[in-house]
Amino acid sequence: MNNPRHNMRDIYPATGTEITAKSWLTEAPLRMLMNNLHPDVAEKPHELVVYGGIGRAARTWEDFDLICDSLRKLEADQTLLVQSGKPVGVFRTHTDAPRVLIANSNLVPHWANWDHFNELDKKGLAMYGQMTAGSWIYIGAQGIVQGTYETFAEAGRQHYDGDLRGKWILTGGLGGMGGAQPLAAVMAGACCLAVECDESRADFRIRTRYCDEKTHSLDEALAMIARWTTAGEAKSVALIGNAAEIFPEILRRMQASEDLPNGRPDIVTDQTSAHDPYHGYLPKGWSVAQWRATQESDPAKVSTAARASMREHVAAMVGFWNAGVPTLDYGNNIRQVAQEEGLENAFAFPGFVPAYIRPLFCRGVGPFRWAALSGDPEDIYKTDARMKELFPENEHLHRWLDMARERIDFQGLPARIMWIGLGERHKAGLAINEMVRNGELKAPVVIGRDHLDSGSVASPNRETEAMKDGSDAVSDWPLLNALLNTASGATWVSLHHGGGVGMGFSQHAGMVICCDGTEEADRRIERVLWNDPATGVMRHADAGYEIAQDCAVEHGLDLPGILK
Amino acid sequence: MNNPRHNMRDIYPATGTEITAKSWLTEAPLRMLMNNLHPDVAEKPHELVVYGGIGRAARTWEDFDLICDSLRKLEADQTLLVQSGKPVGVFRTHTDAPRVLIANSNLVPHWANWDHFNELDKKGLAMYGQMTAGSWIYIGAQGIVQGTYETFAEAGRQHYDGDLRGKWILTGGLGGMGGAQPLAAVMAGACCLAVECDESRADFRIRTRYCDEKTHSLDEALAMIARWTTAGEAKSVALIGNAAEIFPEILRRMQASEDLPNGRPDIVTDQTSAHDPYHGYLPKGWSVAQWRATQESDPAKVSTAARASMREHVAAMVGFWNAGVPTLDYGNNIRQVAQEEGLENAFAFPGFVPAYIRPLFCRGVGPFRWAALSGDPEDIYKTDARMKELFPENEHLHRWLDMARERIDFQGLPARIMWIGLGERHKAGLAINEMVRNGELKAPVVIGRDHLDSGSVASPNRETEAMKDGSDAVSDWPLLNALLNTASGATWVSLHHGGGVGMGFSQHAGMVICCDGTEEADRRIERVLWNDPATGVMRHADAGYEIAQDCAVEHGLDLPGILK
Ligand SMILES: NC(=O)c1ccc[n+]([C@@H]2O[C@H](COP(=O)([O-])OP(=O)(O)OC[C@H]3O[C@@H](n4cnc5c(N)ncnc54)[C@H](O)[C@@H]3O)[C@@H](O)[C@H]2O)c1
Ligand SMILES: NC(=O)c1ccc[n+]([C@@H]2O[C@H](COP(=O)([O-])OP(=O)(O)OC[C@H]3O[C@@H](n4cnc5c(N)ncnc54)[C@H](O)[C@@H]3O)[C@@H](O)[C@H]2O)c1
Repeated sequence: MNNPRHNMRDIYPATGTEITAKSWLTEAPLRMLMNNLHPDVAEKPHELVVYGGIGRAARTWEDFDLICDSLRKLEADQTLLVQSGKPVGVFRTHTDAPRVLIANSNLVPHWANWDHFNELDKKGLAMYGQMTAGSWIYIGAQGIVQGTYETFAEAGRQHYDGDLRGKWILTGGLGGMGGAQPLAAVMAGACCLAVECDESRADFRIRTRYCDEKTHSLDEALAMIARWTTAGEAKSVALIGNAAEIFPEILRRMQASEDLPNGRPDIVTDQTSAHDPYHGYLPKGWSVAQWRATQESDPAKVSTAARASMREHVAAMVGFWNAGVPTLDYGNNIRQVAQEEGLENAFAFPGFVPAYIRPLFCRGVGPFRWAALSGDPEDIYKTDARMKELFPENEHLHRWLDMARERIDFQGLPARIMWIGLGERHKAGLAINEMVRNGELKAPVVIGRDHLDSGSVASPNRETEAMKDGSDAVSDWPLLNALLNTASGATWVSLHHGGGVGMGFSQHAGMVICCDGTEEADRRIERVLWNDPATGVMRHADAGYEIAQDCAVEHGLDLPGILK
Repeated sequence: MNNPRHNMRDIYPATGTEITAKSWLTEAPLRMLMNNLHPDVAEKPHELVVYGGIGRAARTWEDFDLICDSLRKLEADQTLLVQSGKPVGVFRTHTDAPRVLIANSNLVPHWANWDHFNELDKKGLAMYGQMTAGSWIYIGAQGIVQGTYETFAEAGRQHYDGDLRGKWILTGGLGGMGGAQPLAAVMAGACCLAVECDESRADFRIRTRYCDEKTHSLDEALAMIARWTTAGEAKSVALIGNAAEIFPEILRRMQASEDLPNGRPDIVTDQTSAHDPYHGYLPKGWSVAQWRATQESDPAKVSTAARASMREHVAAMVGFWNAGVPTLDYGNNIRQVAQEEGLENAFAFPGFVPAYIRPLFCRGVGPFRWAALSGDPEDIYKTDARMKELFPENEHLHRWLDMARERIDFQGLPARIMWIGLGERHKAGLAINEMVRNGELKAPVVIGRDHLDSGSVASPNRETEAMKDGSDAVSDWPLLNALLNTASGATWVSLHHGGGVGMGFSQHAGMVICCDGTEEADRRIERVLWNDPATGVMRHADAGYEIAQDCAVEHGLDLPGILK
């Protein structure tokens, strides 16, 4: 039998200026859908899986073909509806309306769990859209590098006057996501010592230039860090070892005032896979080989030992925190495990969103991104240059753009991500649209963002953890965000459930707008790229964050029930 | 201290042609918000409660004032966002976009329960919007009369060739909702015998002409029914008694072939408040006085006795069903209780939605309604007449319009409800807009609907119970409905959670469009009032209902993944 979710086709988006849809506004979603399944972009393209476990771009291959077909036929005043990856209807709207409206994986709350989802999925009635998988604006690894970079940079702003030169970050884990840390740290201007137990993971990061050096010796690693920080060089080293041993040892040296670069690490975090004690965390004193073998023979033993080690690991992190070192949880649930293991003050240090990302969200700053539909890297390089002109004062942004160009390979259609906020996004959009109009760029560009953004997500265990007013679980906000982006004329708009943290735990919205160079696009861009981040400022102002309230006043937002 | 949710102000919408907002598109939501709080419309207007327990129109009185203020100032290209009854932002959109976007009571699923809602509500962070309360299109009792009428009429179509003349309906309960039954039955052409234990409830229905006669004697009641059915007259009688005794007795007479009109009731249902065994259902053999007293002194005793009686009540209903009498549950949970009490075949007969409403939903038929912003009843009478002209063949509709005019008093702004479907709604809307343009009507009219409609609700215990493909809990559909109505240019659009069945159990969308007589309104009306019911046909076609698939084909809907 044919598996509706598996075939061997390779999907590549069209590039260049010839289009098979009736306009760029429909060619854009067509290319971006295909780009999500590009062999260099998607994790399991033949299974339609883009990223994040089972985050798909379409429900089945038949649905993929039908979506493409519908997009090619879609008129300038029609809108295609996509329901959990299946194209269900084409309706007449108008030219200022979105061309595609998407709802993925949404379930009535009482049934919003993995069991019910899986039941529906088995019947062919569901698809998990993650965030940018089912909404056709995933751009590969650049996103996680940039997110980590922004987190480190914001920590730098909060604790070190925005200057991480000569500072060093201690972390653990160089896996799929964690491997972005050394590169992100260096981009942010800091040195990085990353403890990784599996040498092959470290080697991979050395090979792809995400990490600079490798060593098996703590002393040698610290010597490198000392040399680089003194010279003001931003470089990274992977230390092959166990974080549960290395973290406490560095803490001991710090407390004993033994020789340590800067006398202490300047930022401490961790991205071992502590959320999974069976497969994700090497227990102290174990070899990697022994760990893998015991995962098969006696998983419970692994888990017990791993959890005990995590407690020691977190205890060291709390030690750093108590000594005044900025320390953060990076969403791997390690504090929770340590607390369950009896470490009472495991939650002494904060999660990364409330600590570092929320102040950005308060100003509407988040993962703005764009992709060149031409397929030509030059189009992105030109926009890079234009962005630097447009924001001449923003050194942080310049650094990111330079380093990104230098160190991050494009995957699929050339794309760029940069975190900017209210008042900046629409300017960037208008500038790009102008470049399309002028012919400076070979073809139109799409602008979108992650759903992990200022006004577009309710996710009480991550993006909306510990909101000031306790409104973590209120999901009116992402729904209003999607409705407003629809009313403002985004090219496609999506509403998802369960992204990032799984079924039951989040609701979030996406939007993408196509810069086709027209003046109508100017007007839409101005509305959408203003309103979208403004909903984030509004949501945070309502929750009582002063940064957001100030930002709203500064930008003249009209928030009747909030700014009274 | 001032209670933010209570004051003694009486709210009346403006009437006539002078407006205080900048256009009819913003005057319309202003008047309809106020109409929801009109003393004749709202259940507890001073507490902002419109209907359905705590379904509110605004979060606080301050928010009410701020919403009014914002609507009065709103420009033709601006959109107001309302978050759980609080006006949170005004944004620039465009003239074809909705003027108001509303999200009420939405919670991330894992937290979507009454406990968490109440916690937020206490903090001033939440509001329960029910369906039409928080979305400003409630029109009083006419809605439940019409819904019940449609249910009976559809039963008539399915079982009696659409002709209920000479037929009689046996039911129980003449309370807040159930009291609509005798009137709805008569409007549908049938006689009705309604068993009600509390004489004061029956008297109220006699007084307001919802019910024609009253008696304490079963024999007398049956004699009336016999007389009316023979004469082909549609009339109703309230029998003061206990349904748990009367239903089994009528079943006995039927089985014993004793004298009974038509030899049997033609339809059997029930609207006692069986969902609440402590307060809602009189146990067999008890007096009403004894019941009320024991509710205070020994509630558990009431519940035990009531539940046992419900079992006998349902057993009788199953008896009718097994004898071929169309029998339906009207959403009071009585089957569930009977089953828990050991009646194994309690679910032998179906709920009202899968049995009678779903076939209507499959054709996009649902609770279409309009209100005259002029405040003048003549405006509604003129539209009544126009609707009869427009749908000359639809006798059912003519009967409803005539009876409604005759027997239902307007509450607040004069309004009319009629169930019509895809292909009819936009025609009705265009005709009304034409009448506004011509000056036939004194002022503009708004057209909206309940959220309990074809394409706008996911509610697995009610509207989407027992969907053919098992997709009861998939809520992508109402979200797409709201997005599409926004993209099509409805005047206001809303997304709610928890209406009808409470927190965690439903997600649903509303829309209202203003007929201001302009040609732009024509275009919006044509799109919105076509697309809105079409999403319902689409949703049911996807679930495998042939009626919906045929309807889609007949109307030329383009449903790529569904009609392949
Ligand atoms: N936004 C977020 O919340 C967010 C973002 C990124 C990652 N994360 C979390 O971060 C964690 C890492 O993600 P990933 O995708 O990189 O996982 P991964 O499993 O690919 O990588 C984890 C790495 O940690 C190493 N490791 C395990 N135990 C170790 C130990 N004791 N000492 C040193 N190294 C050890 C493993 O060898 C592996 O290379 C996960 O828990 C993930 O959920 C969260
Ligand atoms: N769409 C829906 O699902 C829907 C719509 C309307 C009503 N309902 C359900 O129908 C029920 C009735 O609603 P309501 O608002 O009219 O409630 P209500 O409490 O106002 O009225 C119930 C009536 O039943 C009478 N009664 C109680 N026990 C009786 C008995 N043994 N014999 C005869 N009469 C008895 C009471 O005196 C009362 O007048 C509720 O359970 C409600 O949830 C559901």
